[in-house]
Amino acid sequence: MESKVEIPIPSSELLIRATAVKQASVLLAQNTDDQRKSALFAMADALSSSTNEIVDANQEDLKRSKKAGLNNALLSRLKLDHNKLDNSIKAVRQLAALEDPIGITQLHRELSNGLYLKRITVPLGVLGVIFESRPDAVIQIASLAIRSGNGAILKGGSEAKFTNEALVQALRKGLKLSEVPEDSICLLTTRKESLSLLKLEKMVDLIVPRGSNELVRFIQDNTRIPVLGHADGICHLYIDSDVDLKQALEIAIDSKCQYPAACNAIETLLLHENIAPSFLELALPAFKKKGVSIVGDERSQKLGVSSNADESDWSTEYLDLKLAIKVVPSIEEAISHIRRYSSRHTDAIATNNQNSAQKFLLSVDSSGVYHNCSTRFADGFRYGFGAEVGISTQTLPPRGPVGLEGLVTYRYFLQGEGHIVSDFASGEKSFTHNDL
Amino acid sequence: MESKVEIPIPSSELLIRATAVKQASVLLAQNTDDQRKSALFAMADALSSSTNEIVDANQEDLKRSKKAGLNNALLSRLKLDHNKLDNSIKAVRQLAALEDPIGITQLHRELSNGLYLKRITVPLGVLGVIFESRPDAVIQIASLAIRSGNGAILKGGSEAKFTNEALVQALRKGLKLSEVPEDSICLLTTRKESLSLLKLEKMVDLIVPRGSNELVRFIQDNTRIPVLGHADGICHLYIDSDVDLKQALEIAIDSKCQYPAACNAIETLLLHENIAPSFLELALPAFKKKGVSIVGDERSQKLGVSSNADESDWSTEYLDLKLAIKVVPSIEEAISHIRRYSSRHTDAIATNNQNSAQKFLLSVDSSGVYHNCSTRFADGFRYGFGAEVGISTQTLPPRGPVGLEGLVTYRYFLQGEGHIVSDFASGEKSFTHNDL
Repeated sequence: MESKVEIPIPSSELLIRATAVKQASVLLAQNTDDQRKSALFAMADALSSSTNEIVDANQEDLKRSKKAGLNNALLSRLKLDHNKLDNSIKAVRQLAALEDPIGITQLHRELSNGLYLKRITVPLGVLGVIFESRPDAVIQIASLAIRSGNGAILKGGSEAKFTNEALVQALRKGLKLSEVPEDSICLLTTRKESLSLLKLEKMVDLIVPRGSNELVRFIQDNTRIPVLGHADGICHLYIDSDVDLKQALEIAIDSKCQYPAACNAIETLLLHENIAPSFLELALPAFKKKGVSIVGDERSQKLGVSSNADESDWSTEYLDLKLAIKVVPSIEEAISHIRRYSSRHTDAIATNNQNSAQKFLLSVDSSGVYHNCSTRFADGFRYGFGAEVGISTQTLPPRGPVGLEGLVTYRYFLQGEGHIVSDFASGEKSFTHNDL
Repeated sequence: MESKVEIPIPSSELLIRATAVKQASVLLAQNTDDQRKSALFAMADALSSSTNEIVDANQEDLKRSKKAGLNNALLSRLKLDHNKLDNSIKAVRQLAALEDPIGITQLHRELSNGLYLKRITVPLGVLGVIFESRPDAVIQIASLAIRSGNGAILKGGSEAKFTNEALVQALRKGLKLSEVPEDSICLLTTRKESLSLLKLEKMVDLIVPRGSNELVRFIQDNTRIPVLGHADGICHLYIDSDVDLKQALEIAIDSKCQYPAACNAIETLLLHENIAPSFLELALPAFKKKGVSIVGDERSQKLGVSSNADESDWSTEYLDLKLAIKVVPSIEEAISHIRRYSSRHTDAIATNNQNSAQKFLLSVDSSGVYHNCSTRFADGFRYGFGAEVGISTQTLPPRGPVGLEGLVTYRYFLQGEGHIVSDFASGEKSFTHNDL
C-alpha cells in the first residue's frame, strides 16, 4: 500500500455497519464467560458444518487470483484446504478453554468505611482488524475477539473475498445460535471501506493489522486509533568477550536460520573484538553450510566476511537467510548500536559474565531482552499465553508478544452509600485505603 | 493555542538537549531505588536552600505578567510564595516514601528446564512535559520522573520563565549531588522548542500535558507520541427511579458544587421520569441556594427548570456552577445519552436497585463508573495512589486517575543456558510453562 493514499471519509453505509457492531459490543460486554465460551463452540460447530462451502469458495478465490497473476507465495498463503481449516476450527475450541481475560479484579480497596473501589478488566469495545491474504486470520481474530468480549470489524484482502465471506457467514450463523449478538462480527468488502475504518475513532478502539511490514506501517501512519502490532523486527545478537563460543554459535544459527522470515529472527550479529576472530573462524563455515549470505563492516571483512555492509544494512529487516555482522570494541558500543538501530522487538546477549548480562538487560530498551538463548523464543505461545494477538514494539504496555490481555482494558468501579467529597474535605470522614 | 499552528522541525540545539536527557535516562534506568530516593531528598534540599531566589524570580514573573495584563486567575496560579513552595518541597520528600514502581516482577515463569521468563517493570525513558502557568508543576513532575526512573524535558509557560529557570537550576543542583545524572532533567525555554518537542518521537516516550483543555487537545492533535491526559471532563450523574432522593441530591450537589472547576465535577444530571418531579422539587431550591444556574430539556422545563438546554449543552464542560438537566424514560436512555456525550472520565448512578447498578456499571464505558457516590472521588490521591500523574480518558490502559505506574512499562527478560528453538521444534525439548 502506498503511503500517500488519501483516507476517504467513512460512507454512511460503513457508519451504519460500524454502529451495529458497536451496539452489539455493549451487549457482548454483558455476556458471561460461559456465554462467550458457548459462542466459540457454536462458531466452531458452524464452521465445521460449512467446510465444503468454505473450501469451495477458497477454490474460487484461488482460481481468480491465479488468473490475476498472484505469485506462488501469496497463493499458498491464500489457500485454505480442509486440513488447514480443521486446524483453525480446533484452535477456536482451544481458545474457549483459556482463562477469561474479563472480570479480573486488579485492585480492591476500601477507600473509607462503606466506600469500595475495584479495578476490573473489561473488553476494549470494538476491534478493527485489517489483514492480507491468509483467510484463516478471520477465524483466529473473530474468536479472539469474542473470547475477550470485543466486537470486530474485519477487512481482508480482495483476493480472499469469497473465502472471507463464507467464513464470516458461518461465524455469524454460529453466533446466531448463541447468546452473543450476531452483529458482534462484520466483514468489510471494499478497499475504500478498509481505509475509512482508520478514521472511525469513536467506534473502533484498537486496530489489529495482520500482514506485511508495509501494511502495518501504512496503518500506523494513517490512523489516530491505537494500533497493536509492529512494522519491522530488527533483532540483534551480541556476543560478548567472555562467552562459550560453541553455545553462542548455536544461538546465532537458531536466531537467524530456524525461521528467517519471522519477525523475531536476527538481522545483525554484533561481535566483541576479543572473540571476533575465533568466533568467525567457527561461524563463517557454519553459516555458509546453512546458506546464509553475510555482509559485514570493515573489521569483520578483515576477518573473512567477504561482502560489505553499508549503513542501510543496519536498519534492514532481511526476512531471509542474510545476516549483517559488526565488530565492536565493547559492550557499551554494542548497546549503543542496538539502541540506535533496533526496532525494540527482541535483542539478545551471549555472555558468561553476569555483570555484562545485567548491564545489557537494563540498558537495551526493547520489549524482549534475552540472555544466552535464541531470539526466536519471542512468541505468545512459547511464552505460555495460549494465544497471540500480536507482537508490539511500542514503549507503553502492552508490548512484546501480547496474549488475550492485549484485548482488554479496565474500569474503576466505585461503590458507596451516598459518600460525598465534602465530608472528607471537612474532616468529618477520612480515607482508610485498606487493600482487601 | 490555535489548532492550525505548524509544528516546526526540531532545531539542532533541541536535538542536542534531548539527546543529553535520553542518554542520562539510560543511566538513570540503572540507578537503584535508594539512589533515586536519595536524589529526591537532594532535590528537596536544594530547593529548600534556594527558596529566596525562587520566590524572588517568581516576583519578577508576577510583575512582568501583571504589566502584560495577565488576568487575576492566571496570576494566582502563577504565584509561588514561600508557603506554596514549602508544601511542594514537602511533597517531593513524600514521593520518596512511595513504593518503587520499577523492578516489580509481574510474571515469572519457567518456559522449560533452565529457561526462565520474567516480566519486570522498567522506566518509560523520557517524559515530555508541557504545562501552563503553575510553576509548582515543575517540582511535581520532575520528582515524579526521577522517582519512576525517567528523564524529563520540561516546557513551561513564558509567563513563569524566571521561576521555572530558578526551579530547574535548583533541581539540577540537587541531582548533581546525587548519583542520578544531572542531565535527567532539562527545561526548554522558547515556544518554538515546545512545539518541536511534539515531533521527537524517537527521544520522548510519553507527553504529559498540564493545562487547559485547549492545550491538551492541541497536543493530542499534533503528536504521534502517546499523551497521558484528558481534554474534556464531561461527567454525568443519573438518578434512577428506585432511589433515596435525599441521598441522591447530596451526591448531585457534591458532584457539581464541591469544586466545579475540576474535571471530575458533573456537567449533566439525568433524571428518570418517575422521580423527576419529586427530585426537582427538592433540588431546584437547593441548587439555587448554592448559586448553580440550570438549563434543561423540554420535560425538565415543564417541571420548573427555567432555561433551555440546547444540543451543545450536552457536550459542554462548564467548569463552573452551571448544570444541564435531562429527563429520561429509562435507564437504557440514560446509558445511551452517556455513551454518546460522556468524555469517558467518570459517570455515576444513584439507585437502590442492584440490577440497575450492575447494568449501568457494565454498559457505561468510562474509566470510572460509580454507584451511590460523588464523581468527585475520581482522583489519584483519593484512590490511595499517593501521587497523581494525570487522569486519562483513553480506552487503553493506563486510564482513569494514574499514579506512578503510568510512568513505567515492562520488559520481558528471558534467561537461558544456550536454549534454541530448533530443539523444541524437533521435540527434543518441551515447554513446561510453570509459573514460579
